[in-house]
Amino acid sequence: MSRPVTLFTGQWADLPLATLAEKVAGWGFDGLELACWGDHFEVDKALEDDGYVTAKRELLESHGLSCVAISSHLVGQCECDPIDERHKSILPDRIWGDGDPEGVRQRAAQEMVDTARAAKLFGVDVVNGFTGSSVWSKLYFFPPTSQEDIDAGYLDFAARWTPIMEAFVEHGVRFGLEVHPTEIAYDIYTARRALEAIDNHPSFGFNFDPSHLVHQFVEPVAFIDEFADRIFHVHVKDVRVQLDGRSSILSSHLDFGDPRRGWDFVSPGRGDVEWDPLIRALNRAGYSGPLSIEWEDSGMDREWGAQEALELVRSIDFAPSASAFDAAFGDDE
Amino acid sequence: MSRPVTLFTGQWADLPLATLAEKVAGWGFDGLELACWGDHFEVDKALEDDGYVTAKRELLESHGLSCVAISSHLVGQCECDPIDERHKSILPDRIWGDGDPEGVRQRAAQEMVDTARAAKLFGVDVVNGFTGSSVWSKLYFFPPTSQEDIDAGYLDFAARWTPIMEAFVEHGVRFGLEVHPTEIAYDIYTARRALEAIDNHPSFGFNFDPSHLVHQFVEPVAFIDEFADRIFHVHVKDVRVQLDGRSSILSSHLDFGDPRRGWDFVSPGRGDVEWDPLIRALNRAGYSGPLSIEWEDSGMDREWGAQEALELVRSIDFAPSASAFDAAFGDDE
Amino acid sequence: MSRPVTLFTGQWADLPLATLAEKVAGWGFDGLELACWGDHFEVDKALEDDGYVTAKRELLESHGLSCVAISSHLVGQCECDPIDERHKSILPDRIWGDGDPEGVRQRAAQEMVDTARAAKLFGVDVVNGFTGSSVWSKLYFFPPTSQEDIDAGYLDFAARWTPIMEAFVEHGVRFGLEVHPTEIAYDIYTARRALEAIDNHPSFGFNFDPSHLVHQFVEPVAFIDEFADRIFHVHVKDVRVQLDGRSSILSSHLDFGDPRRGWDFVSPGRGDVEWDPLIRALNRAGYSGPLSIEWEDSGMDREWGAQEALELVRSIDFAPSASAFDAAFGDDE
Amino acid sequence: MSRPVTLFTGQWADLPLATLAEKVAGWGFDGLELACWGDHFEVDKALEDDGYVTAKRELLESHGLSCVAISSHLVGQCECDPIDERHKSILPDRIWGDGDPEGVRQRAAQEMVDTARAAKLFGVDVVNGFTGSSVWSKLYFFPPTSQEDIDAGYLDFAARWTPIMEAFVEHGVRFGLEVHPTEIAYDIYTARRALEAIDNHPSFGFNFDPSHLVHQFVEPVAFIDEFADRIFHVHVKDVRVQLDGRSSILSSHLDFGDPRRGWDFVSPGRGDVEWDPLIRALNRAGYSGPLSIEWEDSGMDREWGAQEALELVRSIDFAPSASAFDAAFGDDE
Amino acid sequence: MSRPVTLFTGQWADLPLATLAEKVAGWGFDGLELACWGDHFEVDKALEDDGYVTAKRELLESHGLSCVAISSHLVGQCECDPIDERHKSILPDRIWGDGDPEGVRQRAAQEMVDTARAAKLFGVDVVNGFTGSSVWSKLYFFPPTSQEDIDAGYLDFAARWTPIMEAFVEHGVRFGLEVHPTEIAYDIYTARRALEAIDNHPSFGFNFDPSHLVHQFVEPVAFIDEFADRIFHVHVKDVRVQLDGRSSILSSHLDFGDPRRGWDFVSPGRGDVEWDPLIRALNRAGYSGPLSIEWEDSGMDREWGAQEALELVRSIDFAPSASAFDAAFGDDE
Amino acid sequence: MSRPVTLFTGQWADLPLATLAEKVAGWGFDGLELACWGDHFEVDKALEDDGYVTAKRELLESHGLSCVAISSHLVGQCECDPIDERHKSILPDRIWGDGDPEGVRQRAAQEMVDTARAAKLFGVDVVNGFTGSSVWSKLYFFPPTSQEDIDAGYLDFAARWTPIMEAFVEHGVRFGLEVHPTEIAYDIYTARRALEAIDNHPSFGFNFDPSHLVHQFVEPVAFIDEFADRIFHVHVKDVRVQLDGRSSILSSHLDFGDPRRGWDFVSPGRGDVEWDPLIRALNRAGYSGPLSIEWEDSGMDREWGAQEALELVRSIDFAPSASAFDAAFGDDE
Repeated sequence: MSRPVTLFTGQWADLPLATLAEKVAGWGFDGLELACWGDHFEVDKALEDDGYVTAKRELLESHGLSCVAISSHLVGQCECDPIDERHKSILPDRIWGDGDPEGVRQRAAQEMVDTARAAKLFGVDVVNGFTGSSVWSKLYFFPPTSQEDIDAGYLDFAARWTPIMEAFVEHGVRFGLEVHPTEIAYDIYTARRALEAIDNHPSFGFNFDPSHLVHQFVEPVAFIDEFADRIFHVHVKDVRVQLDGRSSILSSHLDFGDPRRGWDFVSPGRGDVEWDPLIRALNRAGYSGPLSIEWEDSGMDREWGAQEALELVRSIDFAPSASAFDAAFGDDE
Repeated sequence: MSRPVTLFTGQWADLPLATLAEKVAGWGFDGLELACWGDHFEVDKALEDDGYVTAKRELLESHGLSCVAISSHLVGQCECDPIDERHKSILPDRIWGDGDPEGVRQRAAQEMVDTARAAKLFGVDVVNGFTGSSVWSKLYFFPPTSQEDIDAGYLDFAARWTPIMEAFVEHGVRFGLEVHPTEIAYDIYTARRALEAIDNHPSFGFNFDPSHLVHQFVEPVAFIDEFADRIFHVHVKDVRVQLDGRSSILSSHLDFGDPRRGWDFVSPGRGDVEWDPLIRALNRAGYSGPLSIEWEDSGMDREWGAQEALELVRSIDFAPSASAFDAAFGDDE
Repeated sequence: MSRPVTLFTGQWADLPLATLAEKVAGWGFDGLELACWGDHFEVDKALEDDGYVTAKRELLESHGLSCVAISSHLVGQCECDPIDERHKSILPDRIWGDGDPEGVRQRAAQEMVDTARAAKLFGVDVVNGFTGSSVWSKLYFFPPTSQEDIDAGYLDFAARWTPIMEAFVEHGVRFGLEVHPTEIAYDIYTARRALEAIDNHPSFGFNFDPSHLVHQFVEPVAFIDEFADRIFHVHVKDVRVQLDGRSSILSSHLDFGDPRRGWDFVSPGRGDVEWDPLIRALNRAGYSGPLSIEWEDSGMDREWGAQEALELVRSIDFAPSASAFDAAFGDDE
Repeated sequence: MSRPVTLFTGQWADLPLATLAEKVAGWGFDGLELACWGDHFEVDKALEDDGYVTAKRELLESHGLSCVAISSHLVGQCECDPIDERHKSILPDRIWGDGDPEGVRQRAAQEMVDTARAAKLFGVDVVNGFTGSSVWSKLYFFPPTSQEDIDAGYLDFAARWTPIMEAFVEHGVRFGLEVHPTEIAYDIYTARRALEAIDNHPSFGFNFDPSHLVHQFVEPVAFIDEFADRIFHVHVKDVRVQLDGRSSILSSHLDFGDPRRGWDFVSPGRGDVEWDPLIRALNRAGYSGPLSIEWEDSGMDREWGAQEALELVRSIDFAPSASAFDAAFGDDE
Repeated sequence: MSRPVTLFTGQWADLPLATLAEKVAGWGFDGLELACWGDHFEVDKALEDDGYVTAKRELLESHGLSCVAISSHLVGQCECDPIDERHKSILPDRIWGDGDPEGVRQRAAQEMVDTARAAKLFGVDVVNGFTGSSVWSKLYFFPPTSQEDIDAGYLDFAARWTPIMEAFVEHGVRFGLEVHPTEIAYDIYTARRALEAIDNHPSFGFNFDPSHLVHQFVEPVAFIDEFADRIFHVHVKDVRVQLDGRSSILSSHLDFGDPRRGWDFVSPGRGDVEWDPLIRALNRAGYSGPLSIEWEDSGMDREWGAQEALELVRSIDFAPSASAFDAAFGDDE
Repeated sequence: MSRPVTLFTGQWADLPLATLAEKVAGWGFDGLELACWGDHFEVDKALEDDGYVTAKRELLESHGLSCVAISSHLVGQCECDPIDERHKSILPDRIWGDGDPEGVRQRAAQEMVDTARAAKLFGVDVVNGFTGSSVWSKLYFFPPTSQEDIDAGYLDFAARWTPIMEAFVEHGVRFGLEVHPTEIAYDIYTARRALEAIDNHPSFGFNFDPSHLVHQFVEPVAFIDEFADRIFHVHVKDVRVQLDGRSSILSSHLDFGDPRRGWDFVSPGRGDVEWDPLIRALNRAGYSGPLSIEWEDSGMDREWGAQEALELVRSIDFAPSASAFDAAFGDDE
């Protein structure tokens, strides 16, 4: 099929975009999904500097690369999260400020609104990201946690994100939440609950990424079929469950890459994601946007990995059938 | 085998102990593991009132019931947890006080020390319970969480619990942590890490409960074999994994009893715990304490359940072989 | 729980009811689900003979047996089926008549109406049975079969059964289709399609029987949850899938009891039905009617089997929890 | 290995053979298995027109394509089936005639004899196809179906196909039944029963196609090993079982391509067929005929699919070992 | 069903038969399968002492116990085995003699003939046992082992056992080989090979014991169906496969009872034997002899175990259906 | 990654090395692991003839092939084995001599010492091979086998191999035992036992080959992690478990290649070895030696196979990540 294959630049932010773009183009990618960190896509500069987005676009075009989505996971995370020191490390100083939690959250909210504006200037209509969650950390209900406690988290989410979504609508940009543990939605039931909380706002949908579902034993295809019209963007990322009776699916507070973990991210094609049914589900959903490789594998050289991932995506991204097969045997007259 | 079968009274604290004891004796139990809440075992009264423990013991004996362990999960939880409103609901006012987190933690610490003293007065040498954890809620490492962050949680645990364990030693009482999500140890690797943090303190061991391991896909037998000499007490409790492609093993912030959850507690014998290998492992470990039924099943009448659980335990608790079988064919001379 | 446990008499129609009732009462059953064949419940006599239903009721009561449902699978089957010689063997002569298919169908339709009337006289408000299907035999779509072909089958069903259901409503009786291969509904999707075809007629629901779902790999619990308010009656019947690489799940035109078949019916508890989740689902659905053992196992003596099945049902039929467990740890104040 | 890889043209009959042959040759196929419908191979013209088979052969050769088998599934199906309107759509008018069932069957029988004659003229010695079955639709034994009923179906098959097979012998042509639900043989046990019914006629064997076995849970390798000397031709076709607790293996009267079905055909390599053991079994059986790709996948563009299927077959079709390995370590002297 | 349930006394040979018989009768067994070691059944005394067998029989009868089979595994093992020191420990001195291998084998052969004679005197017509094997230890073919090497082992077996079987025929006694690793037959294919080697001698059959098949992943039911008319006796014994990624199915030269082994024997009902299908297979085979519990479980007290095993067997040993079920729905006339 | 990919020449010893080297170089291999049989690497000539090793090296270099390890499985096997006729076929006459077992063993021991010397001359520092075992054949403990019996086998191993290892140390050469049934170590527990027996001799380690572990259900990754610093060499070889209820995992004394076996060797990538986790484990272990393809598949042409195996290895041998991923989201400042 002709879906573009892009690389999400988040895990390559240590490289200047110019360097990365050259590599990626050389490997044969169609485009990039730019991260709003490193020098890849800087929201403040895009808004302040008239030539910024043009120069960025020209850099990409000089390598024959497209860009139809940008991503702002780090700032979005700070919207609903209880803020602690770890958030400081993922925010620019201008947003962290004095670190007062509510202040951080409000500056982050403004940044998300600005991101939509910058996206529009840059000519992309999808911003992917995280939302954070005030109730994620209460995922096990001890001390006893009532549904009222949980509802409060969803209300908080709605209160903070509805105004942001309103700004998105205004700019004609949509937000794709990457459904993911630590976020307001991390599986099918919480995605439904989040949508209901935000009153099915038309700008709010999903950056579908199967790697966050499989280790929860959630079937990615079921997610796509359930939210077919809310799939705004797609990440190609893989995960392997490696349970041996000693490892825990909760991963034992061990680092990614530690073989004692119960699951870990791996290069696409080397994990438990079943790609063929997933492509069929995207075809059914009518999704025609990019297949964006978010490459993360603590045990593999990333340049080897990005290239094998591209090859995988090319081999799995087939077009749906042009016509039903019921005509197969009936063509004789 | 002759291990006593007891009922943990935590889930029956709405009943006065006198009422409960009569029922439980009638069903054929050997004894009770008293919870330190409701009127079952009140630490403050035990220490203040000279006749309290004697009267309590006589009540039990009048029904032919033993008691060799008491449990203080609720207070223990407040030791290391970040304190929030939910903790208020599980603490007596005298410990909650003004709710200032550090104050709560320190009063809880004192209560644990008092609990050891009360246990000794009452004549039991095992106190089961929880520890809480300052890092549990960071179980998914986003925002990025370093091993230094996690180490800090274990240091906090060691700093708070070492003095308590010292008091336990003094009274000849041991503490059995119920390894459980939300606690400092919730699987094999974290149990090892907790033991190392607390320098393998001789008073610190485990209240083994398989129901918190199976939904993590941790093999209960592996836990027993790994920590054979630290199994201070045993809970008989069961859990069922009910994954169907839509449910998440993280349980979607849904209440216990909601069929959309990925796992749930069920009456012993109706879940995924394999009891036969578990009994063999306890036999290998030389564990001769009680098998204490902690009955919890949101879908079953608890009185029916307690009785079928007792019947299950009687049928599975066999003695080890008196002699090796290598003599089997060789007795002919 | 206090759901009555009954025996469906269909597979015992070679015994006079008087003989059977004595046996069954002796085994400890609570009641019978009478088949409308043999001398168990004769619709024509019930309508013609004023004393028939009274005498029948007295016979049951003399053995302490209840009856709250009757079953008319054989006549119902002839409603929508293409009629062939095999149908002659399951019908009384007065319905078969000259065997002209449409005549048979119409006489069968009248008999179903009469059955509702007789049921009312007898004091039962559920009639279980089959519907037949004009499209079942086209389950594999070769020669090419269009959805229009299939739709025609559902229209035929609606045309024939709507008038019957109207008569049922009039008598305050409900019809429980036993969802089953060869019927208009045999799984979740076809049950939904049948309900839609008949415009969700309030008299039309299901006699839930897991044994017809499991060999199709349909999860019985999913069926109950989907149609909770349409579960009018429940059959306890079990089935085992016995695939070995040579056997076919389609069963190779081999008789029941032939070990080369890919699946077969077995005595409850010896097959692949998981009873515990099923009881929980019935509890959720609020079903309080009988658990009626339809005993069928080609490899076991039926009297042994009926008794072990009764013992099984008594052990699995627990009551739901009286109260939620969220109060478990929170009772301390 | 040097087995030719061919494409079965049945699902491409909407394309003129000239168009198809050019495409297929361009993709690298070795040859075609011509369907006896569309303009691919017309039996009546082959017998009437002296130049027909020569022209057809020349067309193929101009593209470097071989043809060693032709297929007549549609006409064969009408031999034993109860004839209904669906059969009209798969037959030419000259065979359907007035649609009187017995007349249709007899004209179809004559056409099969003619097909053998035409095959010989064309220089191929295998005709693949279907047989139909008068008992297939009775695959579930309700209303009660005796083995006598089933035996009657096999007798009917023998009576109708023995004369056809006699004609095949006369022309030195063999018939390969594609074992398939809806046919007289659809698994191992029914294939054996069919062979016995027709007295192991030497012209009667199988067009082995694993895609019809796997969703029945029949092991394809077991089929090959059982009927090694009756494998006259091989189809490469794949199937995926997609059971999720709601879907039925009987497929719920849903169209191919509907994701709610319990199984569906997919492009070779994307389903549940295990190709490596299958190739080994064919090597053991000494099969050296074509591997003919019958491409059918309702969710994929067929031109993409045919090419990836060809690539798959080239990668799996290895030669057997030239010599046993017992010499491996013993060559030292 | 009325099959007698017996206890094989081999693992209880440390107890005098008088002691054992009293216990076993008290537990409710129907009889004993006497081992030819300890004082349970002494072949030499039975032949020398006129009153021996009568006294033995009277002892059993005084406890209401039957005996229809005796077992001579230890002597039989020495028939074909390469003899080493371990064999000395399982033989009486009179057979071991000077330990010269061929002499041991010949004295063992004579003892087997005498055993048949003694069995007849005692009134039993089945002797169970082992055969040994000269090729068992070559089960992995390195150094390279040819089929000629293996054939030599079967020829040796035939040469040694044919004369013994001739003596059995003469006395009207049959030999039931317990198919078992270390014996000439240990699975389906080697059982067939052994039968062919000994020319299907009518006195040679099997003491079916599923516990030796399951850890080889051989399906016990397949064995019974394959050799239905050669099932001379049945052992009820269970085995558990306990693979965890570190344990080996070859068991690592670790003792029975060591939890690191890949499999181990366990009390019946606690392992991987599926008893229901096995009973059905025995019913099909028409086996009406004893179900003899060979109790062996290194982790359980044997007296507890023997009693629970008896209870299991009583619950599983159902009679076959008296009549086919095809009459089920057809009884209406 | 840049690990060299070599071919082990043992299964190609029927070809002169000159012929083989040309082929293998043409296929793209980096080097060879020479077998010490055929004309590939002759220890006696290497020591006797000054020019031998130079000529051998030049031959390899003329084809651009490296050699960093040689293998001496056949001679090593005779060290601890009970010697029988099969060993004659794998030994040169000069070692077999008169076949007296102890003499054979001692001449084999000398040959191993010489092999180390020859290896050094040739410039390789790893010799792979077997050890044989005096207790392997007692893998099933009947007749009863005590741990003392088994210990004796490990003592025998230590006594025979310690002097050989001393000689290896002297020459700076290491010995890699291919852990394998029939050897002193064949799984994790026996490998540990062997290491302990030989006092963790620094010259004694392993030629890791997963194909001998998987059919024992031992996880290859667990082996690597357990003995990370003892992995001296790696064989790429695959195995498939093919259990169907009739086949035995012990393989029924059937030849390799017989489809009735429970497992068999297959070309790499076509079996049950999971290569991706294995490569990750080797990366963790820091193994940087060759990946040496030991090609053995009784059902495939070996030249086809060697080439597809090479392609597999090239696709799986990725480098580890240069840096941890915890920096992934944190690069923003």
